[in-house]
Amino acid sequence: MSTREQEALELIERVRAQPPRFRDPQVTMAHGAGGKATWTLIEGLLAPALGLETLADAAVLDGLALTTDSFVVKPLRFPGGSIGDLAVNGTVNDLAVTGARPLALTLSLVLEEGLSADELRFEIDAVAAAADVAGVRVVGGDTKVVERGRCDGMYVTTTGLGRLDERGRLDPTALRPGDRILVSGHVGEHGVAIMLARGEFELAAEVRSDTRPLWAAVDALLEAAGPMLRCVRDATRGGVASVLNELARASGVAALVREAAVPIAAPVVGACEILGIDPLYVANEGVLVAFVAPEAAEKALAALRDVPGCEHAAEIGVVKSEPPGLVLVETAFGGRRVMDMLVGDPLPRIC
Amino acid sequence: MSTREQEALELIERVRAQPPRFRDPQVTMAHGAGGKATWTLIEGLLAPALGLETLADAAVLDGLALTTDSFVVKPLRFPGGSIGDLAVNGTVNDLAVTGARPLALTLSLVLEEGLSADELRFEIDAVAAAADVAGVRVVGGDTKVVERGRCDGMYVTTTGLGRLDERGRLDPTALRPGDRILVSGHVGEHGVAIMLARGEFELAAEVRSDTRPLWAAVDALLEAAGPMLRCVRDATRGGVASVLNELARASGVAALVREAAVPIAAPVVGACEILGIDPLYVANEGVLVAFVAPEAAEKALAALRDVPGCEHAAEIGVVKSEPPGLVLVETAFGGRRVMDMLVGDPLPRIC
Repeated sequence: MSTREQEALELIERVRAQPPRFRDPQVTMAHGAGGKATWTLIEGLLAPALGLETLADAAVLDGLALTTDSFVVKPLRFPGGSIGDLAVNGTVNDLAVTGARPLALTLSLVLEEGLSADELRFEIDAVAAAADVAGVRVVGGDTKVVERGRCDGMYVTTTGLGRLDERGRLDPTALRPGDRILVSGHVGEHGVAIMLARGEFELAAEVRSDTRPLWAAVDALLEAAGPMLRCVRDATRGGVASVLNELARASGVAALVREAAVPIAAPVVGACEILGIDPLYVANEGVLVAFVAPEAAEKALAALRDVPGCEHAAEIGVVKSEPPGLVLVETAFGGRRVMDMLVGDPLPRIC
Repeated sequence: MSTREQEALELIERVRAQPPRFRDPQVTMAHGAGGKATWTLIEGLLAPALGLETLADAAVLDGLALTTDSFVVKPLRFPGGSIGDLAVNGTVNDLAVTGARPLALTLSLVLEEGLSADELRFEIDAVAAAADVAGVRVVGGDTKVVERGRCDGMYVTTTGLGRLDERGRLDPTALRPGDRILVSGHVGEHGVAIMLARGEFELAAEVRSDTRPLWAAVDALLEAAGPMLRCVRDATRGGVASVLNELARASGVAALVREAAVPIAAPVVGACEILGIDPLYVANEGVLVAFVAPEAAEKALAALRDVPGCEHAAEIGVVKSEPPGLVLVETAFGGRRVMDMLVGDPLPRIC
């Protein structure tokens, strides 16, 4: 590493060592994007005020996990899915990557006055169908209505209750040098599908959202690797890059990603090149990142590839000891660059 | 009862006997008001599509209860409270009236771009303070941001997990003729406080929201009446009238309310008279209605009055066998009228 690179890394580390503070005078779209601004909002304002260590998925009591998510995706329907199944899969997946088998969901709706009954019925049916596929029951809900224009059709909040699986103990601070980094499938599809569905770009590519439940994948990983499965995360807002940054930081290790090993479908590669975005920052709604001890990595990857929807799973990198807290990418041409947390909001209201 | 009254009752019963169907072409404000339209939306569309008997508070598994609520109250702050403590107390109370001791909450925020950091901090502090008073932990959350104008500052969804108390088995179908009907305090304060806070009426009355956690009240009732406590409900959207209608229908009994026995503070009486609304339809956020077997009613009422905030608790009526499913009010002048479910939406976005 050159002296200049070394200095840049030291600066990043110094900045990161400071406790985050929320200094913005008001909320911006970037606070919802899952990157640096979201992190500052959560760690600098919400978590301290609520007396939480972090505002992430939370195991609560007696082996149960409870997690919540609001969905404000725009448009409501897009190739491959809609807000209804996104709301089910998103929350089911938050449970799954906590190592909890999903048991029950609640569904809370904020509806816009004037929303057509057909649209509402379509989404409720989508919720029911997705819950069925995910093997989870919707056990209760709530409905509120706001005036025309005060919402975009509907906002949906789901909360999931799950039971922690005893085969593993997933922990974001458990990453160790040598651990292998797996992803469960093609990355970047959800974000690109939404971008194209908005029609803001003149691209003819056919990309479908990857929205799907991930408990089967986590189940397979737990079965194959047991306690050697260190941690799992679904790569939603902020993409794979944000997951790697978050966990490298939590465990005080580095993550080294081989760019050429990341599975990406050709239309997504093409769309990202034209749009000038890095697919590793693009949101997924059915892709997880798993960290596995080296001795179990091969078996875990094979098990993952046997899960329907995870045929393209791949090992994309390895955990290193240095530099702690950073994510480095080895480019196809043999270069190396730091892949930091997402800054700003390239794509608002992705989920 | 006169023949005409009898005919009117028979008509109401016939209409009610039909399974509800959601026929509206689109969502209206009334669907969020907690009255007839809400009931049609839930029972006619949401519940059947989701395979639920009803979309009410739900006990899930192994003695646990899970419940969710979205809050869209306008304005965000009002005399006596704000959306932050409303979101905690509302969900804590849904658990409490299910007979479940609140254990944990999740908090999901939809924030409007441009919301001031001070306003956000104020509400998060309100959430933390209310959770502290209610003895419940906030264990996780989520934040989304939508563009300016697509939300009113913030919408808040809380989900609560509680443990069912073994002293009683609260059941909306358990009401029996002779049961006494108790309310835990002055009715109508939250709704009137919101109405006045909006400044749409030229009324100088000082009315504060009654937002408060109700587990202590349910705890006292369970301790005093045990299994003779039939059912408890908090009288939120649609007020005491809607609770009585819902439970009379669920149990196939009548409820007879003595209007003069209903505790109402003078400023609320005055405001309701001027506004031409019936305080029994006005939302409360810290008042419960309890149904108690006659032999335990006196002890239950005394226990309730010992709970801070419930000093004005009163017995307001009795359960009768006829006419099943209806609520009758005995006016101060000795007359009787049917008090049906709320129709339309006299006060949108009350919670």
